[in-house]
Amino acid sequence: MKRSNRLVILTDFFLENPRKHIQLPYFVTLCDTTKSSISEDLDIINAVFKEQGMGHLERSTGAGGGVKYIPEYTYAKSVAFIDELREKLEDPTRILPGGYLYMSDLLGNPKTVRDIGRVFASAFSKMDIDVIVTVATKGIPLAYAVASFLNVPVVIARRDPKVTEGSSVSINYVSGSSRKIQTMVLPKRSLEEGSNVCIIDDFMKAGGTITGMISLLGEFNARVQAIGVLAEADDDEEERVINNYTSLVKISNVDMRHNNIEIQAGNFVEREAKE
Amino acid sequence: MKRSNRLVILTDFFLENPRKHIQLPYFVTLCDTTKSSISEDLDIINAVFKEQGMGHLERSTGAGGGVKYIPEYTYAKSVAFIDELREKLEDPTRILPGGYLYMSDLLGNPKTVRDIGRVFASAFSKMDIDVIVTVATKGIPLAYAVASFLNVPVVIARRDPKVTEGSSVSINYVSGSSRKIQTMVLPKRSLEEGSNVCIIDDFMKAGGTITGMISLLGEFNARVQAIGVLAEADDDEEERVINNYTSLVKISNVDMRHNNIEIQAGNFVEREAKE
Repeated sequence: MKRSNRLVILTDFFLENPRKHIQLPYFVTLCDTTKSSISEDLDIINAVFKEQGMGHLERSTGAGGGVKYIPEYTYAKSVAFIDELREKLEDPTRILPGGYLYMSDLLGNPKTVRDIGRVFASAFSKMDIDVIVTVATKGIPLAYAVASFLNVPVVIARRDPKVTEGSSVSINYVSGSSRKIQTMVLPKRSLEEGSNVCIIDDFMKAGGTITGMISLLGEFNARVQAIGVLAEADDDEEERVINNYTSLVKISNVDMRHNNIEIQAGNFVEREAKE
Repeated sequence: MKRSNRLVILTDFFLENPRKHIQLPYFVTLCDTTKSSISEDLDIINAVFKEQGMGHLERSTGAGGGVKYIPEYTYAKSVAFIDELREKLEDPTRILPGGYLYMSDLLGNPKTVRDIGRVFASAFSKMDIDVIVTVATKGIPLAYAVASFLNVPVVIARRDPKVTEGSSVSINYVSGSSRKIQTMVLPKRSLEEGSNVCIIDDFMKAGGTITGMISLLGEFNARVQAIGVLAEADDDEEERVINNYTSLVKISNVDMRHNNIEIQAGNFVEREAKE
């Protein structure tokens, strides 16, 4: 097979299979070529991926050695994306009663969702994560987007148990903002004991839902390695029970009377800059 | 820029932007090269995409002409994927009380979900679809997967209205299998009047939920162009109120006593073969 054809096939393979370790003989067969040609192809792809700020190929040598595509947005690309997001959110027609913000259009756009996933996956790239956990409903697409770049499965906690999931573990927790007692359920079968977990959600006010998830995960002896929320509400910061999280945007000063809203960058921008 | 680098960049671009119409000058600037070089690159990529059964590049000439990547699994690739799925589902430990089937592990795998999306998107590729509609919760990841290949947004109907979505339209419907009266809600703002809609869900028994969705969409004067369900239950076929749908697998003979289950191919295999 010619180099030009191999480059298309290999690029497609890496993009569809992030973080999957592949031994070189697999590509030798796939492309009907030699190991040294594949090696040169990988050098080209790695150089372009790096130059484009989309990650890199991780090579390992020796027995069982091979290659793995690590998708990582550069810090600059992530910040540029967050800026775009802020602009889109700073539209006063998004303000809903109660100081909530209409975000369903952005969360309904598969490309935006994928980009959000890429930013979180880049931030959590060096962590040891076995599974992404979210709670129904709005965090689900974000959770899948992050999971697809980290090459791990998604587990969905629910507010009501479903017959189609078998036996489950449930907890009661107090919602941070409304102070109501709520229930959260996770099917027993869905999560292995002692998993390393990343929690993803769309929105955090006082953090009650995430605290609920952490308690529920405690029942599975899971270790929460990372927490990512798309948007946090600024005004509840004092009451907040969760500290170690990463947010992309921060909603502050939702002024319904003057139809004004302010969206700041989330703590991602500061956290990641330090590294 | 060298051809080898351009091929990596262009392949990435098409995979990340399916069905997006791009004029050639965009690529000329992106790759700092000539129009004729880009044209040759596109020929190479198109040939590889076709040969790999992953779709093709659609070129158009004249003013405003350009190129668009149409991701389409070949029929053979889709059928092979459905066969794999059947095998995975035909595991008796999946049987749950009530004749339900545990599928959360498969639906929790981003790669499987993406492949399911690709199969549906290929089947519906020639239809005029503006938006994917699903109902919370399990259909959500599938809906996003289909949407990402068709390059359209996702709208999620819920069984309970949420304050964060503004005013909404709701209907009551009778669940086909349990004969219970249920509610379904769609935020007013989420769907334009007269949209062409594709409904995606994970599971269909008698079809009550999908009938409910169709009535709800009627309130928006939407036209339902396609219905895709991952799995249908065979035993409710007589009572079924929905006829024109595409299923990937059919669950039949769930025998809890003998711990046996039979998974057949869905009507996708027959429907698509005819074309």
